Amino acid sequence: MDITVVGSVALDSVETPYGKCELELGGAATYFSISASFFTRVNMIGVIGTDFPQEYIQILQSRNINIDGLKQVDGKTFRWSGRYHKDINQRDTLDTQLNVFETFKPTISKEISQVPYLFLGNINPSLQLDVLRQAFPRFTGMDTMNLWIETTPDDLQEVLSRVDILFINDSEARQLSGEENLKKASSEILALGPDVLIIKKGEHGCLLFFEDEETFMLPAYLLENVVDPTGAGDSFAGGFMGYLAYRNSVEPEVLRQATVIGTVIASFTCESFGPRRLLSLTSEEIKKRCYEFIQQTRIQDLPQFPF
Amino acid sequence: MDITVVGSVALDSVETPYGKCELELGGAATYFSISASFFTRVNMIGVIGTDFPQEYIQILQSRNINIDGLKQVDGKTFRWSGRYHKDINQRDTLDTQLNVFETFKPTISKEISQVPYLFLGNINPSLQLDVLRQAFPRFTGMDTMNLWIETTPDDLQEVLSRVDILFINDSEARQLSGEENLKKASSEILALGPDVLIIKKGEHGCLLFFEDEETFMLPAYLLENVVDPTGAGDSFAGGFMGYLAYRNSVEPEVLRQATVIGTVIASFTCESFGPRRLLSLTSEEIKKRCYEFIQQTRIQDLPQFPF
Repeated sequence: MDITVVGSVALDSVETPYGKCELELGGAATYFSISASFFTRVNMIGVIGTDFPQEYIQILQSRNINIDGLKQVDGKTFRWSGRYHKDINQRDTLDTQLNVFETFKPTISKEISQVPYLFLGNINPSLQLDVLRQAFPRFTGMDTMNLWIETTPDDLQEVLSRVDILFINDSEARQLSGEENLKKASSEILALGPDVLIIKKGEHGCLLFFEDEETFMLPAYLLENVVDPTGAGDSFAGGFMGYLAYRNSVEPEVLRQATVIGTVIASFTCESFGPRRLLSLTSEEIKKRCYEFIQQTRIQDLPQFPF
Repeated sequence: MDITVVGSVALDSVETPYGKCELELGGAATYFSISASFFTRVNMIGVIGTDFPQEYIQILQSRNINIDGLKQVDGKTFRWSGRYHKDINQRDTLDTQLNVFETFKPTISKEISQVPYLFLGNINPSLQLDVLRQAFPRFTGMDTMNLWIETTPDDLQEVLSRVDILFINDSEARQLSGEENLKKASSEILALGPDVLIIKKGEHGCLLFFEDEETFMLPAYLLENVVDPTGAGDSFAGGFMGYLAYRNSVEPEVLRQATVIGTVIASFTCESFGPRRLLSLTSEEIKKRCYEFIQQTRIQDLPQFPF
């Protein structure tokens, strides 16, 4: 089944202890789309300015991505720049220029409105609601952030009540729920609407909570060289949602497998600046790392007990 | 097979956001012994003062623990007090009184010197070496801390070259290796001697590294109520080493299963102040949580791929 993603497309300038990049292809919708495109056809809804390099448009077109919904308008593309610490899990935002993204109003064509899987990237909840008024997916995932938790809690709650799955990081889960303990936080958040909650913990992996109190947990894939973690969370969501759309299922076991896929795709994203590693990635490499990761996280036989 | 542990026995005073305890039964050797005693007979080597409550001696005697090597001498027992933050992974040490522990000289009887499994708790590396001169185990595990990495690096390297398995937390692994990346850190540390390295990450689980570059990773068991994490690391080591001794094997699959056991035992420790929860723990509860934890961390079937 196809999937639609609505979110940011950006030009990123990033500095890490291992180097830097300038005006690199970025944005949540970009990382999501490239990651999901390994598994299914992706419809990308976003906005870019006249400064957006033709090369980047060609990169997106060369994948299994429909960019008819990526509007080019007068002005500059959304720009983000950040610097990562020696502890690569910490970063400072140096500059954010919303530019054409400031007046972004997602419009969903009639054709795309019928696409069965939808992902609402991290944008203003009022825009996420706009999309939900125009689209009729069977299954919807979403992301959000501390800014919307603080500034537009009512709209955010309305979106949460209408989606199936929420991707959020651990500090945001604590903020949204007011609970320090993540197990308690998960109950509070599931009560707001989603059937499934994924709490992302960066290098520490992720936690998956189902409505029926079931829990699934995975560490992250252990990388020897993390070059730039930008986009890892969006790649995780892209791999995860792309896998659900490909399997056309949201059964618990498929959700668990999607967590493995998301984790592995996100690990590749961290191996280069921008989406470069994702773009060079082969299907054999994805398979190989998935099998290796599963091997690294499971016991073969149940423990024995002396009692 | 039996196991011997050498380490601290303490009276702990702890404050967490959920309450406090005073002069509670504590110390690395205590948590290790109680945890390991579910799986095998434990010989405890340590020192206590005349203030050590008779009640605590009876608690230890009531388990599968031989306390002939727990010497009572004139003076006060080692005392530690600490306060945990709202983020329960953070703590401040408020007071440390070494007391009789300051002049602790472990002596190993001839009988205990032949015990095949040995665990060197977190004590001065020169004392760990003293033990290794007196004992002839088949398999030795050890713990250490930042203090010894900084102040007695030569003795510590000597111990490391003579043990089979090292338990260490993530910040100590970075400090010992000088590497920020934990995969790189593991290679550096394994080169110092141990065949197996376990990096503990508290609520984020642990990483297991084998000499042949194999890796095993597990999240922590997700608790809804963490009351006091004191002793969790020592309980992990006790469950882990106790399981190896019970299975009388250090095969990779047994080491992986031991990681599950250590994780589960440590999770119970966090559910009360001191070792109270461990002391009320039944074998059925251990089994049940092990099975639940395994269920929460594994996929049933391999993912499918469209390529």
